[in-house]
Amino acid sequence: MTPPFTSLAAFRDRLTELPAPDAAATRAAEARDGALTKPPGALGRLESLAVWYAGWRGVERPRLVTPQIAVFAGNHGVTARGVSAFPSEVTAQMVANFEAGGAAINQLAALAGARFSVHPLSLDAPTADFTEAPAMPEAEFTAALAAGWAAVAPDADLLVVGEMGIGNTTSAAALAAALHGGRAADWVGAGTGVAQEGVARKAEVVAAALAHHGAALDDPLEALRRVGGRELAAMAGAIARARLQRIPVILDGFICTASAAALEAARPGALDHAVAGHVSAEPGHARLLASLGKEPLLALGMRLGEGTGAALAIQVLRGALECHSGMATFAEARVAGG
Amino acid sequence: MTPPFTSLAAFRDRLTELPAPDAAATRAAEARDGALTKPPGALGRLESLAVWYAGWRGVERPRLVTPQIAVFAGNHGVTARGVSAFPSEVTAQMVANFEAGGAAINQLAALAGARFSVHPLSLDAPTADFTEAPAMPEAEFTAALAAGWAAVAPDADLLVVGEMGIGNTTSAAALAAALHGGRAADWVGAGTGVAQEGVARKAEVVAAALAHHGAALDDPLEALRRVGGRELAAMAGAIARARLQRIPVILDGFICTASAAALEAARPGALDHAVAGHVSAEPGHARLLASLGKEPLLALGMRLGEGTGAALAIQVLRGALECHSGMATFAEARVAGG
Repeated sequence: MTPPFTSLAAFRDRLTELPAPDAAATRAAEARDGALTKPPGALGRLESLAVWYAGWRGVERPRLVTPQIAVFAGNHGVTARGVSAFPSEVTAQMVANFEAGGAAINQLAALAGARFSVHPLSLDAPTADFTEAPAMPEAEFTAALAAGWAAVAPDADLLVVGEMGIGNTTSAAALAAALHGGRAADWVGAGTGVAQEGVARKAEVVAAALAHHGAALDDPLEALRRVGGRELAAMAGAIARARLQRIPVILDGFICTASAAALEAARPGALDHAVAGHVSAEPGHARLLASLGKEPLLALGMRLGEGTGAALAIQVLRGALECHSGMATFAEARVAGG
Repeated sequence: MTPPFTSLAAFRDRLTELPAPDAAATRAAEARDGALTKPPGALGRLESLAVWYAGWRGVERPRLVTPQIAVFAGNHGVTARGVSAFPSEVTAQMVANFEAGGAAINQLAALAGARFSVHPLSLDAPTADFTEAPAMPEAEFTAALAAGWAAVAPDADLLVVGEMGIGNTTSAAALAAALHGGRAADWVGAGTGVAQEGVARKAEVVAAALAHHGAALDDPLEALRRVGGRELAAMAGAIARARLQRIPVILDGFICTASAAALEAARPGALDHAVAGHVSAEPGHARLLASLGKEPLLALGMRLGEGTGAALAIQVLRGALECHSGMATFAEARVAGG
């Protein structure tokens, strides 16, 4: 139903075939919501979240059974510019930590009852320094999109994608600036923890990248190829495949959202199957979510990546679905006022 | 260790014996947090939440095992003033719904793995209309405080208290105004869903109550007796007992928080063992949380009560504890940069 692709053009074609939510299931879920034993609207965001999920799954009373979390890792040539507080070796070390179950995302995936997988993408061959050249040639970019695509479990009923990649907040900042404009300084922040002068250096690097690539960044997928990274491309590929299979997505932080924003820019509405799990402490994230019209479910000052904010937000979605699908109606409970 | 009490004076005495968190466990948890495989501070609020919980439980690596949710229900004579969109009969009908497992809080309690109990408090004998008389005589008030006290499971490792009581947002508004001042209109909102003229009526009722009771409301527990309700008193009793047993508390919405605020006003610091689970859509709640210096964990536009916002926030706390207690340290994972 959704075979892989072997060229960027073929991937672009897939984005023209995006399905809509099931209108009948949406209506049925709305009607059910109105009949449950609570004042109308009293569960706030939980109500719209349940209806949204019901529509995408095509089920009036859905439950979350097989959520999936996939983490993609990549290394970035732009780290040569001194944009991170950590050395690039940490990417592979953290992949080992994910595999051993010791990272934050492992704990949150277990709590969410989610299948977890980690996908290191050619860590020993960092992408090119994007202030001087495209991060990836087209074949590598297509392979990274396809790696994300292939990582999605066909029977998943929810997808969270996360990332690990020393230097990738700078990549995300350059991508966000390419997609949404504004000054380079608007999109950079402390990342894993660079000091103020590090933030200034990141802004210079982003500005240099924008100047180097110029009008070539006007095409969103081309921007993802030129200033993104393998893990960013893979997240975009996974989110696109989820859409084709009507698997709802919870977006994580700044890097995940920047990656997803390339899809939305390439095809407006491409992220209708996605909600924002949280807003991170990385300052560009709130700006990016506002540009996308996405209201975050959580605002806890997290800035770790790995999919952690979205993984925690799975619990909010699950709470919404348990209420929606498990509560009695006014008629069932013989409560007045329904 | 925490026997019940038979007079209001005895309850007041208990509030003078409040324990502090365990300083050694707090320090140990802070040190552990700094050694975990993440940049310092990258889990945001989850980190301070885990350290706070560790201190109150006296354990460096705590887990949440036996959370408890107790819902108290009461009826209010002030409903004669037309302050609610629902008739008083709904209180008992919803208690039956709680007992049958059909309400929102049942679903969220099950999701949280929490023990759930519901405590109807003399529903067939509503409190007095507090615009004309104290809501409860002292003996009834003491009995309601004691009912909350008795409801706390000694082995609970977390407490959420919730409420059901047609008319109780008006009671909470009057209590909040008595404790924190401001105009009556600052503290009233739509509650379960009264229209604009109903909100104006609620403000008149609150103003009338403040005028009737006058300086007698200067004593916080006396304010709780005069304009509160049995379920509000019971929540305060339960939160006080939790403090004496170092059981951390997650506060729910406006009514729960108003009830808790009476303890804080009676004894500053009495809510140090409590965090705000969410900020509700009832406009007085944000104002009340700000007065208490409590930052909510969730902001999802919920306004149902029952403990639902706090019950959902249990998942955030559990996520924090799973990360804190389950993650590898830099040394264990051999990751650079710790």
